[in-house]
Amino acid sequence: MAFSAIRELKVRGAPLIGVVGAYGLVQSITGNGNDDLLTAERLKGARPTVVNLAWVMDRVLRASLGGSREEAKNIFNEELNSARLIGVNGEPLISEGDSVLTHCNAGALATADYGTALAPLRMAKAKGKRFRVFATETRPVMQGSRLTAYELLKDGFDVTLIADTAVGCTMSRGMIKKVIVGADRVFNDGATINKIGTFQVVSLAKRFGIPFYVALPLSTLDLEGNKATTKIEERGSVELEYIRGKRVAPRGIKTFNPAFDITPRI
Amino acid sequence: MAFSAIRELKVRGAPLIGVVGAYGLVQSITGNGNDDLLTAERLKGARPTVVNLAWVMDRVLRASLGGSREEAKNIFNEELNSARLIGVNGEPLISEGDSVLTHCNAGALATADYGTALAPLRMAKAKGKRFRVFATETRPVMQGSRLTAYELLKDGFDVTLIADTAVGCTMSRGMIKKVIVGADRVFNDGATINKIGTFQVVSLAKRFGIPFYVALPLSTLDLEGNKATTKIEERGSVELEYIRGKRVAPRGIKTFNPAFDITPRI
Repeated sequence: MAFSAIRELKVRGAPLIGVVGAYGLVQSITGNGNDDLLTAERLKGARPTVVNLAWVMDRVLRASLGGSREEAKNIFNEELNSARLIGVNGEPLISEGDSVLTHCNAGALATADYGTALAPLRMAKAKGKRFRVFATETRPVMQGSRLTAYELLKDGFDVTLIADTAVGCTMSRGMIKKVIVGADRVFNDGATINKIGTFQVVSLAKRFGIPFYVALPLSTLDLEGNKATTKIEERGSVELEYIRGKRVAPRGIKTFNPAFDITPRI
Repeated sequence: MAFSAIRELKVRGAPLIGVVGAYGLVQSITGNGNDDLLTAERLKGARPTVVNLAWVMDRVLRASLGGSREEAKNIFNEELNSARLIGVNGEPLISEGDSVLTHCNAGALATADYGTALAPLRMAKAKGKRFRVFATETRPVMQGSRLTAYELLKDGFDVTLIADTAVGCTMSRGMIKKVIVGADRVFNDGATINKIGTFQVVSLAKRFGIPFYVALPLSTLDLEGNKATTKIEERGSVELEYIRGKRVAPRGIKTFNPAFDITPRI
């Protein structure tokens, strides 16, 4: 169940995927006596690009002789704590009157509680700072319009939705002062795997001299990983062919649909 | 009727908007005796950023004492001829084994017959060259998935659809060798107004040293225009809130939805 929930994007966002994966493995270990290693490998493969998933599997497996449920709970609490600390540390980056663009969703709906990219914004708002947030739609899964815009609007932020095509135009008009995103895997040279489109948002920010921040918990760091050999998940054509059950592209069209991209240190 | 057809994107693409606008004005002049100048101004305002519309209104008005219907027909034939010439002149740019990205739709569905951006591709295919085309979705109106992908698939091209967020990733993998787009208005310094997203596609092409072409008929040139004062049409939030009648963003969300952007000479 954890496998299909992760695979089919019922839960998403690296930290939350990690937490759900951890509980999924615990359930398997304590429940039906499946081969733990096999279950862990299968769960890792549900979203192979998301490093948190590999990391929590290793932790839960190591703890499986003792209290694996305790370990999953630890992971949850650590992610919760990380999110709050990201908020505390990131809050000073947000200024009164600021205008901050975020891509995808790295808020309460993607993480344990407070969010990663959205944590500094939540903390700044709690401190009474006023600022605007721009959320990209984030095609193809539309986490920006469906989740970020929803979450921020509901919580009283001044949020404006833009199409992914409007990022460059919006920046060129001076409407964006900062960019902040989450991450699915960050290598030791700073190269960042995140939702498809992050790389071009960063490239455009660079062009306009707009400061760019990646907010992440330690669980997202992959210090031994090799970005050249890390598999970037490609998803099927259905995300480009249909939106909410309605066909939006011709039958039989070929697609190229990578779920993530790599932003090098630039 | 021409006004609402243009305004509501029933017809689109600068050359075709021009042709329909021309016939719309002729209909008004020859039919109901409305004030011609008023009708021309109203039609120009249906898509104020599209220079072809202003240009054809002036031509038809100048001809209105004589044969305005003849003039609309001339405009149609000239656009037809332009499209063919764009094909003939642009065809040598396309090489055997090429991989060409296009943004939005500047094909048969946007122009009189042959297309602008797609004319060189059509001509190259007619000559037997084999190459791949990548079409962006082109949110928010999705001319890429609904029109370009449809048109090229139907006509036997090797076409692959990508999300607008995947442009940078696709280029970074060396999958794109050339970029070709149409235009809505080109200034004398080469600055180009085209579908929202063009600017960022070009910026990314520049980053990767990918040659970039704008295909346009003379009617799209605005040699006396000032890009600083040209109005960029902003459309309502409905294009970001709904896709094919389905809600995809939260009720009450603010949006910023420019229909075009300006690509400076870079």
